[in-house]
Amino acid sequence: MKKGFITAGVLATVLAMPAAAQMSVEDQIKTRQSAYQFAAWNMGKIKAQAIDGEVAFDEKQMLAAANAIAAVANSGMSVLYSRDSANDRAENTRLKPNFFEEPMKVREIAVSFVREANALQEVAAGGDKAAIARQFAKVGETCKACHDNFRAK
Amino acid sequence: MKKGFITAGVLATVLAMPAAAQMSVEDQIKTRQSAYQFAAWNMGKIKAQAIDGEVAFDEKQMLAAANAIAAVANSGMSVLYSRDSANDRAENTRLKPNFFEEPMKVREIAVSFVREANALQEVAAGGDKAAIARQFAKVGETCKACHDNFRAK
Ligand code: HEC
Ligand code: HEC
Repeated sequence: MKKGFITAGVLATVLAMPAAAQMSVEDQIKTRQSAYQFAAWNMGKIKAQAIDGEVAFDEKQMLAAANAIAAVANSGMSVLYSRDSANDRAENTRLKPNFFEEPMKVREIAVSFVREANALQEVAAGGDKAAIARQFAKVGETCKACHDNFRAK
Repeated sequence: MKKGFITAGVLATVLAMPAAAQMSVEDQIKTRQSAYQFAAWNMGKIKAQAIDGEVAFDEKQMLAAANAIAAVANSGMSVLYSRDSANDRAENTRLKPNFFEEPMKVREIAVSFVREANALQEVAAGGDKAAIARQFAKVGETCKACHDNFRAK
């Protein structure tokens, strides 16, 4: 995949706010938590195999995990974030209301998440353990950036 | 992608029981529910756009949704199913214990899920709405087969 293509794809995916079938606030919260939980499970596999080495390195499993993380990043999660779903108005969520006051920062982090996750997918297809570990760290930084800014403790 | 390749991939993914980092029963349950929830959200997008037509058909969103469903199917969820995580021994789960008494049936459904989800990914890449609708139905049958057999009401 060419770099230029990725950049265009990143922008199209992140910036598009598609007309979505209406979801309740509860469903938005449950679905976004599920998506991140699924991403985190797959990040954990890469950590265990490519960084900690506690599980034997398996190239196919690393690619499947990277595909899963990229699928989450590219799934158009913006539709799961309505103003009423922040933790000042809704239950069972850690989303902070400032998410809706800092749209440029949200966009920047979301674009980085898609870009780094797509890069991880490419790197994982190559099967190089050290390269996967390096790109894993870059994806992890985008998760952390979002949590530090927009997720309550 | 060639048919032969898919078949080999399906078997490798579904039949491999990799040595995984140990997960608690609670984490297994939360993670498998999250994975299915994420798949269901993406199935819902395809239903809304390719079948019900309540949302405008967007080829890129259909492919992203199909990628997400395939990522779940190929994520090696078998490691999330320990005997102690069934609903006769654990809380907050609908997994029925017969899952562990009918391994051939589980395998058959799991293999079908991977095969049909991978096919949906291929069909979605083609962008043909009617073909996507048809393949969506085949994936949905594999979800239903599993629920009818192994998920409590
Ligand atoms: C664009 C912002 C953003 C990005 C990027 C992001 N997260 Fe999060 N994450 C959140 C927010 C907000 C929540 C809280 C959701 C809620 O409680 O409604 C959250 C919640 C979570 C949770 C808890 C889910 C639950 O069950 O409550 C986990 C685990 C998680 N994220 C992991 C990750 C991982 C791993 C990545 C990167 C691969 C990631 N996140 C990327 C914003 C983000
Ligand atoms: C191999 C078996 C199997 C397949 C295939 C399967 N499911 Fe499930 N599903 C289950 C089981 C078992 C549960 C109950 C999990 C639990 O409660 O621990 C479940 C739970 C769910 C849930 C509820 C999750 C929650 O939050 O509690 C949804 C939604 C769901 N599945 C949708 C789907 C969709 C959509 C597909 C296909 C794209 C699918 N499932 C494929 C076995 C399967």
